[in-house]
Amino acid sequence: MSRIAYVNGRYVSLARAAVQIEDRGFQFADGVYEVCCVRDGHLIDEAPHMARLERSLGELKIRAPMSGTSLTHVMREVVRRNRVANGLVYIQVSRGVARRDHGFPAASVEPTLVITARTLDLAKYDELAGKGVGVILVPETRWARCDIKSTGLLANVLAKQHARDAGAFEAWFIDGAGYITEGASTNAWIVDKNNVLRTRSLSNAILPGVTRGEILSLCRQHAVVFDHAPFTAEDALSAKEAFISSATMGVLAVTQIGHAKIGDGKPGPVGAKLREIYWGTRIT
Amino acid sequence: MSRIAYVNGRYVSLARAAVQIEDRGFQFADGVYEVCCVRDGHLIDEAPHMARLERSLGELKIRAPMSGTSLTHVMREVVRRNRVANGLVYIQVSRGVARRDHGFPAASVEPTLVITARTLDLAKYDELAGKGVGVILVPETRWARCDIKSTGLLANVLAKQHARDAGAFEAWFIDGAGYITEGASTNAWIVDKNNVLRTRSLSNAILPGVTRGEILSLCRQHAVVFDHAPFTAEDALSAKEAFISSATMGVLAVTQIGHAKIGDGKPGPVGAKLREIYWGTRIT
Repeated sequence: MSRIAYVNGRYVSLARAAVQIEDRGFQFADGVYEVCCVRDGHLIDEAPHMARLERSLGELKIRAPMSGTSLTHVMREVVRRNRVANGLVYIQVSRGVARRDHGFPAASVEPTLVITARTLDLAKYDELAGKGVGVILVPETRWARCDIKSTGLLANVLAKQHARDAGAFEAWFIDGAGYITEGASTNAWIVDKNNVLRTRSLSNAILPGVTRGEILSLCRQHAVVFDHAPFTAEDALSAKEAFISSATMGVLAVTQIGHAKIGDGKPGPVGAKLREIYWGTRIT
Repeated sequence: MSRIAYVNGRYVSLARAAVQIEDRGFQFADGVYEVCCVRDGHLIDEAPHMARLERSLGELKIRAPMSGTSLTHVMREVVRRNRVANGLVYIQVSRGVARRDHGFPAASVEPTLVITARTLDLAKYDELAGKGVGVILVPETRWARCDIKSTGLLANVLAKQHARDAGAFEAWFIDGAGYITEGASTNAWIVDKNNVLRTRSLSNAILPGVTRGEILSLCRQHAVVFDHAPFTAEDALSAKEAFISSATMGVLAVTQIGHAKIGDGKPGPVGAKLREIYWGTRIT
């Protein structure tokens, strides 16, 4: 079955789905995106993903291409047309097409909206969760507004590739003060040597991860104590557990950082519990 | 006359010129670009622009889409087909089309090559040069590799728009140490209160501007003394002259920074001389 994409009001074959070369998403990374997980045909954490999209657009003063209700309708239709039971739906909005010029184009320029969906092998993530993954540490090189989910992802691309070249799954950025910000496409967590669950507080330095936020809500509900103090590479290396979170993977254990094992080198109980609770409350 | 673009081996009408929605330039800002000025049908400073393109591609490990010789041939053909006598030619290369995934795709994925050209009203720049323009100062928010001419330009877009909202022509970024790095799409220069021409030395913090480099060569030839020490906002505000440089504008006087006049508020002699020498050695 050939895949179907939604582009500016039309459902088209992915192979022929295109944006004009003067689209500001292509020429300036002047756009934002979201990724929602699809489980049993349902969009997971749809409301907070839509809220974050709206916030990203607002921060960049990009007009919303349609109402949130219409957008979720189209997202569901793209999922349906691609027959995705388990996988993801991807939404990208750019500031639209205009003669190349750094400043914003006329307000009449329509934003570009692209939506795709695809099946993922979620069993692969379950397998990874059982074994744990490795991360490397790289210097923070991104811009000052990582809280906006923009398509300006080149630093993330280079960090992720750096991780793969090193045989690792993810790269964690370390800021100028020596603290870990987050991963190239995930949020970063540890259970420190004092058994405190830690993930950095929200600021311009990290993306307000939807899965991160949902996990923190679950921690509150289940009386799991956590701390928002940022953590250093040393804190991470001496941690009892480490893990990453993202929309498609949920919680995934980190069992190695650089060449060092974390804890006993196996996924730990806190991460495993959070993974179980997270998916448990989302798959009916 | 409708404009013509070159996209991956074909000359097509600009209106229909498109890239696939999974182009990494669109989804990740995973690409680079160059802008060459066209004067009397000739490409200005073509060799250093091509050298910089090659360097940008190398830094990102993106394969060159064709040889430098072939590329300049196509650039000239795009200029010719668009009947551009005075204007610019724009070249963009992305890592190509692949299923969305942060890490690099298979080496077999072909890079995307897009080339456009358009006529510019160069008399407008002469007029601006005669009056001078205003700049505003904004905090540096860009990533750590501004030396790569990547399409990850969202911070530049926001800074430029900020300038326009303030009625200014350009925004100069100020780094964490209080020094001006460069403009949103230009390099920054001053003639300081001691009459020393200053522009910041090359590093990861600024783009190695081709026009900047050519002007420095001309300074050496004409025994104009210059200094590479970075300068602060205070240095700029107390300067005798200030100006910006770029491929399409050459040298353009800055006569106002924020609400303050620079010097006597009129374009100064050093900037005017450099503008004259720069274009004088390029237009035959």
